[in-house]
Amino acid sequence: MSSRETDPASRRRGSRPRRSRTATVAQRDFGELRYDRGYQHVVSDDQVEALHQASLRLLETTGIEFLHPMARKILQDNGATVTGERVCLPGEMVEAMVAKAPTTFRLHSRTPGKSYQIGGNTVVNATVASAPNYVTLDGQRKTGDQAGYRDFLRLAQSLTIVHILGGFPVEPIDLHPSVRHLDAAYDAYTLTDMPFHVYSLNAHRIIDCLEMVRIARGVDYDTLQREPSIWSIVNANSPLRYDTPMLEGVLRLTELHQPVCFTPFTLAGAMAPITLAGALVQQNAEALAGITLAQAAHPGCPVIYGGFTSNVDMRSGSPAFGTPEYTKTAIVGGQLARRYGLPYRSSNVSASNAVDAQAGYESMWALWGAIGGGANIVMHGAGWMEGGLHASYEKMVIDADLLAMVATFLQPLDTSHDSLALEAIDRIGPGGHFFGDEHTQARYETEFHAPLVSDWRNWETWQEAGAPTADERANRTARSLIDNFEAPPIDSGVEAELNDFVQRRKAEGGIATDF
Amino acid sequence: MSSRETDPASRRRGSRPRRSRTATVAQRDFGELRYDRGYQHVVSDDQVEALHQASLRLLETTGIEFLHPMARKILQDNGATVTGERVCLPGEMVEAMVAKAPTTFRLHSRTPGKSYQIGGNTVVNATVASAPNYVTLDGQRKTGDQAGYRDFLRLAQSLTIVHILGGFPVEPIDLHPSVRHLDAAYDAYTLTDMPFHVYSLNAHRIIDCLEMVRIARGVDYDTLQREPSIWSIVNANSPLRYDTPMLEGVLRLTELHQPVCFTPFTLAGAMAPITLAGALVQQNAEALAGITLAQAAHPGCPVIYGGFTSNVDMRSGSPAFGTPEYTKTAIVGGQLARRYGLPYRSSNVSASNAVDAQAGYESMWALWGAIGGGANIVMHGAGWMEGGLHASYEKMVIDADLLAMVATFLQPLDTSHDSLALEAIDRIGPGGHFFGDEHTQARYETEFHAPLVSDWRNWETWQEAGAPTADERANRTARSLIDNFEAPPIDSGVEAELNDFVQRRKAEGGIATDF
Repeated sequence: MSSRETDPASRRRGSRPRRSRTATVAQRDFGELRYDRGYQHVVSDDQVEALHQASLRLLETTGIEFLHPMARKILQDNGATVTGERVCLPGEMVEAMVAKAPTTFRLHSRTPGKSYQIGGNTVVNATVASAPNYVTLDGQRKTGDQAGYRDFLRLAQSLTIVHILGGFPVEPIDLHPSVRHLDAAYDAYTLTDMPFHVYSLNAHRIIDCLEMVRIARGVDYDTLQREPSIWSIVNANSPLRYDTPMLEGVLRLTELHQPVCFTPFTLAGAMAPITLAGALVQQNAEALAGITLAQAAHPGCPVIYGGFTSNVDMRSGSPAFGTPEYTKTAIVGGQLARRYGLPYRSSNVSASNAVDAQAGYESMWALWGAIGGGANIVMHGAGWMEGGLHASYEKMVIDADLLAMVATFLQPLDTSHDSLALEAIDRIGPGGHFFGDEHTQARYETEFHAPLVSDWRNWETWQEAGAPTADERANRTARSLIDNFEAPPIDSGVEAELNDFVQRRKAEGGIATDF
Repeated sequence: MSSRETDPASRRRGSRPRRSRTATVAQRDFGELRYDRGYQHVVSDDQVEALHQASLRLLETTGIEFLHPMARKILQDNGATVTGERVCLPGEMVEAMVAKAPTTFRLHSRTPGKSYQIGGNTVVNATVASAPNYVTLDGQRKTGDQAGYRDFLRLAQSLTIVHILGGFPVEPIDLHPSVRHLDAAYDAYTLTDMPFHVYSLNAHRIIDCLEMVRIARGVDYDTLQREPSIWSIVNANSPLRYDTPMLEGVLRLTELHQPVCFTPFTLAGAMAPITLAGALVQQNAEALAGITLAQAAHPGCPVIYGGFTSNVDMRSGSPAFGTPEYTKTAIVGGQLARRYGLPYRSSNVSASNAVDAQAGYESMWALWGAIGGGANIVMHGAGWMEGGLHASYEKMVIDADLLAMVATFLQPLDTSHDSLALEAIDRIGPGGHFFGDEHTQARYETEFHAPLVSDWRNWETWQEAGAPTADERANRTARSLIDNFEAPPIDSGVEAELNDFVQRRKAEGGIATDF
């Protein structure tokens, strides 16, 4: 691959340089990725309606627990029946609240103009997030730390197909929880210029991170309200419960008009019914309940419908990911989200322990579900392994290749006169070869996806090169990208202000960690 | 996996035992696989029409070479203009001939009732075929031989999701070409009971193989005419040429009413234009030309539209497979085939040298194209590696797992009252767990795909087991299936008759091999 990668001409191939990148790995910038030819359907419209109606019935009769008193109060004021912590939501109320949510919004970063539409017919990719462990480039699995966290930020920033941060790629456990969000946000704002995610765990964490994004963007709070710049994923405690810290985050984020993604973790056979329809009803009910609260609290605030239904391995009880069951529910999740006119989040997941064939095919099953389902955000887009228990640099590089392939797949197929190539076929005729023809030569540098990882050398050449597997090739690419990393430019005054804020808040002791 | 695999109860899980199988690997028999929820679209109907019209213009103005005089005569008699070996086909003639082809037919095997619909909304999976090399279970890549050929037949027969033979999984090069088809067919009819493929290389080979299928099925030629029992893939010599031995096969097979699959090998940038639209126009024109000949020669004979457009690696000129470009053309191929009402063949391909993440994701890209495109036959369904240059036992097992996942994906999602599970969700309530509930217990053995290869054990357990990769696990499964293989029952008289025929034809010297 070296001649292509080091050839300056090849690096010009249609790319608009957008991020810092190393001299050794050529990548294409696809710009905004769009669905132009519709979506897949796993169920009929009637079945979508049956899932919807069952979800409403569940919310109305069984109800759902909201552990935060203010959340219950808001819902009660809007027509819900509250009994203890249990809240029953009338179907008309849910439908009316969900209808208040915007269909699309833009998520902004500190680089002017580098914002992304969330919802509608576009899709952006997020990093792996929240892994408690990672595997080092030397193959050691270890507990998350700031060193690893920073390298994942560097690698993600280097991969042009990764658009936004989905959280901490790996949890920097060596930073004390009271100040972790401060150091982690500082790293994120200085090592990357991607839109950032904040954990919806209590109000102060969110206030700190929003102040940091305000500083990083150099704008005021009114602008942040108009231009959402930080997002958060809120998981229901399935089945049928939202806990207090999460809800406190929801109330604060929606007040500040920052988008919240409601993602029930409905693992069929464990926290949800074993039947996919049952798990989807529960997913849908829990997501709608969260969105109902958000819209009741702050009508019109941006929200995202998150789908994360998978199945357990019934032998061991372990979660399975990237299964055909997962693919089906991911596609149905998209059908449901579109029924409500809501942005949809799905994920690129794998339960594999090794970066092997299983990791490759499970991620592809997941991407088939996400893209077939019309996901607007592909969460855990790059680097998620072992059912989320570790982040992997090699997997991040391989996933970036898969995401670039998805981008290639989504590009419209050109059937213009020149592309139909009748003159070229006639010119070359029976038994000829197209390689040297002008029609080929004019296009060969840009016509096809040029992979980071896929190795198409013949057997002999590949053997002579040491027969590297995809995992090994991705390791080399990850090392190269991290070693040659250059942080995106940042104004020195802004950087100093961020640092001052972090130091001041650390001196104040950060946040309470009694949750 | 051992407790599940050796538990007799688990092996009853909804399976109808259909083939010989070992006691150690539980597999589900999905029966006929059906598309119930439509297909994907990469281009609009207008674009399909543009590709169609461009193909007709190409056949009418540039024409195509048919090297066999009889083929040219038949086409000329039906309205074509012949100049030397070049044949120009009027658009109306092509459309009229293609319209004569049946939309569906059944392909039969020697086991009564074990036949498959080809076309319409069903899909069957074929073995890898025609690899010149294979990798042994000890990891050595070697030239194809009968020992390897037989083991691939044993393994394919053991995998219930593999339905038909697509040719020789690996070429038994140690058998002399004059008699290779006899020994190979004998092995295929005794070690498997799958429908068989014959190479369309000249008339005598086909006559021999058809006599053998007649013996194996214990029927007469009239029955074989009504019940096609052997199929053949015919590749155009792209660009724009059909050679003499292939055409001789076409004429003989169609006369005998055995199905022929016309598959141009249109590698964009090499044997076809670099633009996907151009490569598809050429694929479509070449396939339609072959089908036109078949229908002109024997109206109503069963044919299959084969799509095999991929792209070359523009760095090396090597063919690439399982790329997003491949996926797009596979889906458009299905759109074209459905426009003509023809059965559609696509493939499960990978260019990877190793059974690694690349092999996993390339096969999944290919399967996304095949299944999204509504392929009726997934050729090279299990075992194809290195762009077809070697067959792999481990890949065959992994692919069988992927194909079973496809089958699971294709099963309709049940939204009946019991599946919606409202009572179960209500019974369990907030914070509960579904594992022990009756709704789960009644279904846990059959609700989810139980994989052959995917390993969902937690990190520690997996480490204690030696941290086996998917490749290593597939190796163990392949060894177990081959070691424990039991051939499907065959009448001893039939077996003797097959043997007598092979010995007689070998004594006669087999066939001429001067092609």
